[in-house]
Amino acid sequence: MSPPPPPQARDAAAGEAPIGIIAGGGSLPLAVADAVVRSGRGVVILAVRGWADPAVERYPHRWVALGQFGRLFRLAHAAGCRDIVFIGTLARPPISRIRLDWTTVRLLPRLVRAFRGGDDRLLSGVADIFEDHGFRLLGAHEVAPEILAPPSALGRHAPSERERADIARALALLAAIGPFDVGQAAVIADGHVLAIEAAEGTDRMLERVAALRREGRVHSRPGTGVLVKAPKPAQDRRFDLPSIGPQTVESVARAGLAGLAVVAGATIVAEPDRVVRLADEHGLFVVGVPPHETAR
Amino acid sequence: MSPPPPPQARDAAAGEAPIGIIAGGGSLPLAVADAVVRSGRGVVILAVRGWADPAVERYPHRWVALGQFGRLFRLAHAAGCRDIVFIGTLARPPISRIRLDWTTVRLLPRLVRAFRGGDDRLLSGVADIFEDHGFRLLGAHEVAPEILAPPSALGRHAPSERERADIARALALLAAIGPFDVGQAAVIADGHVLAIEAAEGTDRMLERVAALRREGRVHSRPGTGVLVKAPKPAQDRRFDLPSIGPQTVESVARAGLAGLAVVAGATIVAEPDRVVRLADEHGLFVVGVPPHETAR
Repeated sequence: MSPPPPPQARDAAAGEAPIGIIAGGGSLPLAVADAVVRSGRGVVILAVRGWADPAVERYPHRWVALGQFGRLFRLAHAAGCRDIVFIGTLARPPISRIRLDWTTVRLLPRLVRAFRGGDDRLLSGVADIFEDHGFRLLGAHEVAPEILAPPSALGRHAPSERERADIARALALLAAIGPFDVGQAAVIADGHVLAIEAAEGTDRMLERVAALRREGRVHSRPGTGVLVKAPKPAQDRRFDLPSIGPQTVESVARAGLAGLAVVAGATIVAEPDRVVRLADEHGLFVVGVPPHETAR
Repeated sequence: MSPPPPPQARDAAAGEAPIGIIAGGGSLPLAVADAVVRSGRGVVILAVRGWADPAVERYPHRWVALGQFGRLFRLAHAAGCRDIVFIGTLARPPISRIRLDWTTVRLLPRLVRAFRGGDDRLLSGVADIFEDHGFRLLGAHEVAPEILAPPSALGRHAPSERERADIARALALLAAIGPFDVGQAAVIADGHVLAIEAAEGTDRMLERVAALRREGRVHSRPGTGVLVKAPKPAQDRRFDLPSIGPQTVESVARAGLAGLAVVAGATIVAEPDRVVRLADEHGLFVVGVPPHETAR
């Protein structure tokens, strides 16, 4: 029996194999695949039927239904993948779209346990399942670092001193609720907390702010206030970084805010060119900032 | 010149004078007036036009428009009031309903400062204005202690062990965001935070939970989860205690929750008889619990 190879050798071997990208909805899966291919590695896209954009078919791909862990593992093994990245949304899966296979049925007790009690445990539970089947679950940012927000303003506009104070306050608020496995986003205007995100998601929260403004229930004038998104402290960054995209910028504009801030190096920016163009058009800032610990 | 009377003498003198009740909307102003009168003190209701229930006219009363601090102070002085209680809602005042008088205009800089930056500063700023004009602002619970939630279940139902754990978690969450001058309420189901209230108010937050449930975006089954309301740590309890009433119970039922918990002795219960009847009808618990510090 030979000793296991040193870590570098294993990494090099994994580096030659294609990366399996489990693709949910939205534009991020293609952005990640493009970046991985530009870096010189191969990809195999495991596209979730009903969510993944058919445009992923431009790369080697297989379609899988939600609930087919057995098929997923077989396809990934057959393609020679060891590193797996999950990226994209699987929001609101209707039960009718789920197609259980036997591997999934056997995993159900673990999945049910993982589903109880908040996102963090769900995600780390699912990660453990992949590890047990011989895969290494990586974060999209580990294979495609250029998809992360830079520590600077994207586009022409930058936050004012007052907006920087709101950003710092929002980061502190999000850090305070992090232990409760909730709250990747909040809206603050002139020091006043307008909204905190829980199960509804960022777009819904921004619609609420827009409605409160229309009804005159927000005292600060239109064009003030910031959306701040930050990863939860306990978040498993391998497959649940917060993300923003063109839709986020549009929602921020409709909510009458001055801009949005994300944690640099810990937030995925989908379609950064469109994000910059829209932010400039709307006169909004989009900025990457340091996390709470080092924020003023 | 005689020395000022000792505090007891001053309190006794104030005790003889009628209590001025500035009445906003809802059923609480009348409940407070009834309780004060039952305790043997007189009342003069300063009813805010457009908000106060015309039923307040059963007591000595004067109508005032929003924005008329001068008129309010004159009427209260003329009625011999020294103690003032503010109670009831003034939600979403349309600008067209505000009638400024000169006293208010002179107070505008202080009011604008108070309006900036969250409820807490607004409330204490307004309290200071009353003190400067010779009044003592009391909390409704100080003149009518029976309107507060008791440290026990109202009605037939009581929370289970699991629901008590959700209540404790919600109280801890609300305590964590208290320093940000936000968040009197949250909804937690099976440890999972479904919603946190900011500027939208409790009813809106509960509508959101009901919508998330309808759309299948909440994993816990209907009939689970708790609404928890707590005063903010920095809250000026003289005129901003959280309150619940029949409407709250109806909204909790529509959101598919198991019940609601409030901090005993620090939450006003409007129309407790109807609250109990509705809770029993819907099979919900309504319970007063100790504040976070002493909660398990």
